[in-house]
Amino acid sequence: MAPSQTKAISGGARQQGQPNGAAASSASGSKKFKTGQDPAQPPRLLDISADPLPAGMVSRAPKVYVFGAGRNEGDASMCDLLGGKGANLAEMSRIGLSVPPGFTITTAVCAEYNRLGNRDLPLGVWEDALVGLREVEAMAGLKLGDAASPLLLSVRSGAAISMPGMLDTVLNLGLNDLVVEGLAAKCGAAFAYDSYRRFMDMYGCVVLGMSHESFERELDAVKREAGVEKDNELDAERLRALCARFKGVYREAGLSFPEDPLEQMRLAICAVFDSWNSARAIKYREVQKIKGLRGTAVNVQAMAYGNMGDTSATGVLFTRDASTGENRLYGEYLINAQGEDVVAGIRTPEPIETLRERIPEAYDELLRNTRILEEHYRDMQDIEFTVQEGKLYMLQCRSGKRTGVAAVKIATDMVREGLVTKREAVNMVGADHLDQLLHPQFTEEAKGSGEVVATGLPASPGAAVGVVAFSTEEAEDLQSRGQPAILVRVETSPEDVGGMAAAQGILTERGGMTSHAAVVARGWGKTCISGATGIKVNEQDGVLECGAGRVYRRGDWVSLDGSEGKVYDGKLAVQAAKMTPEMEEFMGWVDEMRKLRVLANADTPEDAEKARENGAEGIGLVRTEHMFFKTEERLRSVRRMIMAADEAERRKALDEILVFQREDFEGIFRAMRGLPVTIRLLDPPLHEFLPEGKELEDLVGAISLETSVPRQEVLQRVEKLQEVNPMLGFRGCRLAIAHPEIARTQARAVLEAACNAQREGCEVFPDIMVPLVGSRAELANQERVIRQECESVMREKGTRVDYKVGTMIEVPRAALMAGQIAEHAEFFSFGTNDLTQMTMGFSRDDSAAFLNTYLAEGIIAQDPFQTLDAGVKELMEMAVKRGRKQRPDLKVGLCGEHGGDPASVKFCDSLGLNYVSCSPFRVPIARLAAAQAAVARMPL
Amino acid sequence: MAPSQTKAISGGARQQGQPNGAAASSASGSKKFKTGQDPAQPPRLLDISADPLPAGMVSRAPKVYVFGAGRNEGDASMCDLLGGKGANLAEMSRIGLSVPPGFTITTAVCAEYNRLGNRDLPLGVWEDALVGLREVEAMAGLKLGDAASPLLLSVRSGAAISMPGMLDTVLNLGLNDLVVEGLAAKCGAAFAYDSYRRFMDMYGCVVLGMSHESFERELDAVKREAGVEKDNELDAERLRALCARFKGVYREAGLSFPEDPLEQMRLAICAVFDSWNSARAIKYREVQKIKGLRGTAVNVQAMAYGNMGDTSATGVLFTRDASTGENRLYGEYLINAQGEDVVAGIRTPEPIETLRERIPEAYDELLRNTRILEEHYRDMQDIEFTVQEGKLYMLQCRSGKRTGVAAVKIATDMVREGLVTKREAVNMVGADHLDQLLHPQFTEEAKGSGEVVATGLPASPGAAVGVVAFSTEEAEDLQSRGQPAILVRVETSPEDVGGMAAAQGILTERGGMTSHAAVVARGWGKTCISGATGIKVNEQDGVLECGAGRVYRRGDWVSLDGSEGKVYDGKLAVQAAKMTPEMEEFMGWVDEMRKLRVLANADTPEDAEKARENGAEGIGLVRTEHMFFKTEERLRSVRRMIMAADEAERRKALDEILVFQREDFEGIFRAMRGLPVTIRLLDPPLHEFLPEGKELEDLVGAISLETSVPRQEVLQRVEKLQEVNPMLGFRGCRLAIAHPEIARTQARAVLEAACNAQREGCEVFPDIMVPLVGSRAELANQERVIRQECESVMREKGTRVDYKVGTMIEVPRAALMAGQIAEHAEFFSFGTNDLTQMTMGFSRDDSAAFLNTYLAEGIIAQDPFQTLDAGVKELMEMAVKRGRKQRPDLKVGLCGEHGGDPASVKFCDSLGLNYVSCSPFRVPIARLAAAQAAVARMPL
Repeated sequence: MAPSQTKAISGGARQQGQPNGAAASSASGSKKFKTGQDPAQPPRLLDISADPLPAGMVSRAPKVYVFGAGRNEGDASMCDLLGGKGANLAEMSRIGLSVPPGFTITTAVCAEYNRLGNRDLPLGVWEDALVGLREVEAMAGLKLGDAASPLLLSVRSGAAISMPGMLDTVLNLGLNDLVVEGLAAKCGAAFAYDSYRRFMDMYGCVVLGMSHESFERELDAVKREAGVEKDNELDAERLRALCARFKGVYREAGLSFPEDPLEQMRLAICAVFDSWNSARAIKYREVQKIKGLRGTAVNVQAMAYGNMGDTSATGVLFTRDASTGENRLYGEYLINAQGEDVVAGIRTPEPIETLRERIPEAYDELLRNTRILEEHYRDMQDIEFTVQEGKLYMLQCRSGKRTGVAAVKIATDMVREGLVTKREAVNMVGADHLDQLLHPQFTEEAKGSGEVVATGLPASPGAAVGVVAFSTEEAEDLQSRGQPAILVRVETSPEDVGGMAAAQGILTERGGMTSHAAVVARGWGKTCISGATGIKVNEQDGVLECGAGRVYRRGDWVSLDGSEGKVYDGKLAVQAAKMTPEMEEFMGWVDEMRKLRVLANADTPEDAEKARENGAEGIGLVRTEHMFFKTEERLRSVRRMIMAADEAERRKALDEILVFQREDFEGIFRAMRGLPVTIRLLDPPLHEFLPEGKELEDLVGAISLETSVPRQEVLQRVEKLQEVNPMLGFRGCRLAIAHPEIARTQARAVLEAACNAQREGCEVFPDIMVPLVGSRAELANQERVIRQECESVMREKGTRVDYKVGTMIEVPRAALMAGQIAEHAEFFSFGTNDLTQMTMGFSRDDSAAFLNTYLAEGIIAQDPFQTLDAGVKELMEMAVKRGRKQRPDLKVGLCGEHGGDPASVKFCDSLGLNYVSCSPFRVPIARLAAAQAAVARMPL
Repeated sequence: MAPSQTKAISGGARQQGQPNGAAASSASGSKKFKTGQDPAQPPRLLDISADPLPAGMVSRAPKVYVFGAGRNEGDASMCDLLGGKGANLAEMSRIGLSVPPGFTITTAVCAEYNRLGNRDLPLGVWEDALVGLREVEAMAGLKLGDAASPLLLSVRSGAAISMPGMLDTVLNLGLNDLVVEGLAAKCGAAFAYDSYRRFMDMYGCVVLGMSHESFERELDAVKREAGVEKDNELDAERLRALCARFKGVYREAGLSFPEDPLEQMRLAICAVFDSWNSARAIKYREVQKIKGLRGTAVNVQAMAYGNMGDTSATGVLFTRDASTGENRLYGEYLINAQGEDVVAGIRTPEPIETLRERIPEAYDELLRNTRILEEHYRDMQDIEFTVQEGKLYMLQCRSGKRTGVAAVKIATDMVREGLVTKREAVNMVGADHLDQLLHPQFTEEAKGSGEVVATGLPASPGAAVGVVAFSTEEAEDLQSRGQPAILVRVETSPEDVGGMAAAQGILTERGGMTSHAAVVARGWGKTCISGATGIKVNEQDGVLECGAGRVYRRGDWVSLDGSEGKVYDGKLAVQAAKMTPEMEEFMGWVDEMRKLRVLANADTPEDAEKARENGAEGIGLVRTEHMFFKTEERLRSVRRMIMAADEAERRKALDEILVFQREDFEGIFRAMRGLPVTIRLLDPPLHEFLPEGKELEDLVGAISLETSVPRQEVLQRVEKLQEVNPMLGFRGCRLAIAHPEIARTQARAVLEAACNAQREGCEVFPDIMVPLVGSRAELANQERVIRQECESVMREKGTRVDYKVGTMIEVPRAALMAGQIAEHAEFFSFGTNDLTQMTMGFSRDDSAAFLNTYLAEGIIAQDPFQTLDAGVKELMEMAVKRGRKQRPDLKVGLCGEHGGDPASVKFCDSLGLNYVSCSPFRVPIARLAAAQAAVARMPL
């Protein structure tokens, strides 16, 4: 890691931080910057094994980047180094928006800080920060610690990937007993002492680890004494007294408030770096699967005040509706408040539209800025702003998180508006967005007859049904017992992310559309209703009171409609999501772009129908054995086949199996008329079809009675089937080579069904697939048996069917021997589930015992059963190369779980596969991933 | 197969069968011909999946090769096509020895014959045979079917690999009622009718499938009538009458004896081809693992008569003692007999030395011929000859089968005699020979106190102890019950090969040193005593009577000393074989030649001692967990470790484990002073160390009591350890990454032991090996833990030890990622057992269910757990290349079962591995294989 990292830092600095920034910036201005992570691109894993930088090495690269009028060393492309917030502050400033001056300390410094672990800034960082501070002071015309013209600072975190509310922030830094008097002289005593008491509280909590309650207690006491209810009703004198009491809180805690503003700044910077490894931040990254980040940057920026009276305000907004995608400002603000007040959800803010009347000039500029930013970034933006005495300051912008519906709507709208091309639009919707769209909704009937017991803000759409839980522990406990939970809180805080992850949906009493609960839930595609002001939540006693005397306690069921903000009593029926017109249009572009075909895995005619509806271009995997469990009769025949003592008995049972298999295949062929249907012959070990315990005893008894074979002998047959490692045992083509009549019967069922369906006028393209092949000889054997039977059937039926014989590539040896195997295969289909198991030596059934450790320790970057592993990929590459060398027109696909994983789909596209096959439900996601892969390969 | 086979046939024919054979033969004369198969080289598998030749295709290549004075179309190099017998008959004739003229029909014809399956010769074969016959008649000056100067023929089988007695032969062909009169006129009536009755008997049995008993009955009747006991006491009249009665036997069977000699010839040829697929021949090939042969050739040759009176004889001999290797003729003959009489073991023949007095000229020429043949073939030869009225004819020569002792003695003697170089000598001993030498012998004490109950010929050396069995069925049954068997027969016939394979040793009442029993047993390295004339075997009733009234029945124990020909009463104690001086000399050459080091797998100090005695140059695999089972106390500690609820409990148990592991390692380091010792850290899944059933319940109870943890909870811990596919589960480094204290303790035990041993003055080279690594990150993690602990130990002990950290390569992914893994590995060791399981997807525990089918069907050529599979080999090649690219001085070895398999060892040598490691017992075999591989790579 060491050398490349150093290079990246210094390289970036030289390119971007040079005086000739103007030329560089106009060039980069034409690029599209994306500040959020690409949802389908997993973050790169840092090699934990490499040696970290030696102490002090970081000092050779710039550690501090200044931004503000005419002095921008960074830009939006430097997200990795400056964090999202820092990079975009620099960018906004660069394109002429009004941004309070400041400087960003890089994420590399954070990494080094945490590596050293001595809670001290790495060599040279402080010196560079001081230089940065001087430049900020010059730009602001103010000076830190100067009572005459005091500069106050915000010290904020900002990682490359947004972690809302997880990292620490200190505001109003620079105040002390002296400076506060200067500020009072300039801006009024009430404002000055209000700022001071806020700072002392925040600093104490964030930097010194004091408890907020100890400050809150004093505040309440003062309010009581003054006989007021709200904080902002306190006058200057009371606030000054409050500050004095806060000093007492410090003393009681055995701490002293640092009067030196530079010491304040240094310790605040360290505190932000420390917050990177706080328990809640680590938990959040774990839940969100955020990996490979170096740390957070620190943004030290001149304060802008939204709390300087009625022409001051602070707010957050999305340039479009983050929930529906509608093209209108979507946000909220508070008059006379600081930013934290909005995000924390403590006061319920006002909708952004009303700002037009309250502070018209600021609103107009804000509206202009949103247009500028959308055009600049070519995406919907999430913005933080402050209005200080009528003057607008932009405090943050980033790509806005949005629901699936919104993502599709925004992408299609922006194409229509000429803001982006179709190709770009295809990249504006992530797999997780489609996933959300495919989430179920309540049926109209259910909603019609359901009883609405409360309403709130439609913070994150979808339908959630579950049992009421009042804490993270309760929600996690319900999840572990397999029961769906609805997390009900007064409001959520970063401490609640565990419970939010465990729950089906979230309901909060307080907080707006951009409250913590709302933002996190939308990011996760989780149903959320926030600010349900009509309810009353008692977390302590576990009571949720709704209107009309309805009371819910732990274990009671409720249903949340996140799209409409309605809470229903009890359990409502759900249905699959319906396609919106935008979605249809969007998926049309997706299909235009992509090269890779998307098939589905389906075992029944019903699944096949569903797959076709979702856009599947065929069936890539019919697991014949899944139909064995459909009825008792079928299972009976299968068990007779398994327990047969000889070929004659086995044939008898197979004749019964033939009948129902043929029927199923006919149904699938009909559903998929005109499209290929890939049928895998019997794969699992036979003992999987046998019952256990008492049921097995009964079966043995029945067979013994029927066949007049002693019970003991029948039992022995069962015992012979038991295996130590069934995954590597007597299954797949190994069974069919030992008992050719099995393959023969299945081939017959396929071809008879195909002939019958064809006679009805269906075009049929059956692909017969042999499982678990590892050598040419195995496939040669099976190909011969299958073709003989198919030819017999076609002769009998007096017709011909265009069928293919091919194989799974799922044993590592098959990938190595692909050239030889292709001599007998018309197609390959990667069975990446088994290929992963054998290549890595990970039993899927048993790997839970260590996979979690591996993920946690960074031994592996992602679950290899979700996203293709590098070793598996190399084998696939080898197989494609060798197979196509032998047979240039070899059709190659993939039919493991990975067929529905966007990163894996992109790899398949790059490998030149013909198709991927995934569950019917994941087909749209695979289509999108294929399109995104194709777009990435297109010339600009 | 088709094109290459055709090419081989026509190519071979063009090269060898052209008129300018003289030039070709003098060139090939300087080559060394080996007619037997290379014991370490498995026969090439024919691809059964390829299309066979279309009918008639074979006709474009020569089908018949003539040999005899001045007319030799074949030579010794054409063994594949002409069979061993045919090729060597041509060769002997080519170098001027006296061989009756004849012709050979190729093995390709046999393949085609059997493919057609209509019991008719393929197109054109008969025509070519007739042309061949004309040439033979010309050379012999006789004519088939001509009563005036009748040519009689032998029709013999001869495959590329010798299958003694398994295929059919017809002698004296060409006789009919007319010709026999002409023969009588020339050679006497007694001889003529004796030949005729022999022919009718043999022809009836072999060609027409009649029973030998039906002829034998008539013979007995005639002997009874004549009042004689022996066949050769019958006079001409009785023999003529016998021939008439034999005609009657044909009639009774509803068959007619074919009077046309050409029809006799044609049907006899077909019969020999048919015998290729007889049940016994198939069984023999299965037992002997003979695969990939096309079929047998047929040698049609002028008869030479050993039964023309007292100056005629027939015999077989080895040019050196096949049992001891002594340089003296070793063989036997019968005066006035035909060859089958000797081989079949019906009359006990006379030792070859006595022929010098009986027929001196013939003996002298025979002696000269043996010298010529040994010099020509540069190997000990197995010869068949006939003396017809004083004139010697050579009927066969081939590389002689020999015991292990003989192989080593002959190789070393021939070097001393200047016949072969040391390099050649190294190739004259096979792995199976050394295997035999490593077989146990009786202790001198046991022999001293043992009671000899019978003596016989020392037909095949070694010590065998077992229970008496009188049939193949009994022997196989005993084997299946795990009981060693001694097969006791009057004499053995090809029908008995199954029982011989199943038995530990073979004892026969009749038959000489070259009888069927003796030849087969020596080939298999199985103890055999033949011709134990003092015993009486009643196979029917299952009674073995020895001298002095000793009687053994089924289930009684005897011990055979095959080296001394002694049968002992009861069970004698056995010991490992001792090194002979020749063996030491030979192994010295072996070690001179080889590049590859040979290490051993050993888990205890005792095994390590044994390995060192056998020439191991270190320990390539110490399976630490094997020592866990040594005592109850150890197992107790291990189980406590496994059942620990937390790290503290686990550490406590590990502290106990540390003590005994250290002690074992000290012992191994002492035994292997100066040599590397490779210690693999804990590998198997933990549940392998837990007891089952009642014992497990007791353990759970005890632990519950001790730790005051509820029984149910302890039981749950056990259940959590159960796995669906333990082979791919929570084991190897996965355990040690989850519980670093395990690796830490083991590393400590290794280093403490190493430091202690070093303090005593032992040079120690511990290699610490991490199992089941699949990625760089895994090994990086373990390397860090191990090195930390090792450095701690060395600091504590105030000394340093030259230790290495490396890894097993046993997961397919590890081979693919070898480059990255080598960043953290100082050595690789291929764990080819697991690598084979995962690469092929074959669970060793479960593959019996299909591996036998696969072997039988030719899906695989050999058991991949015995000999490295091609896919596994490719992964190994990849790993070596990638690993050494990253780390050029990477030490690479192999420590699976394959380390003792000659073919696999040769592959390892070709791959440039540094070492192989195998069981102590197989070390000499691996050394030899390594030397043979090195010799093969040397410039000539």
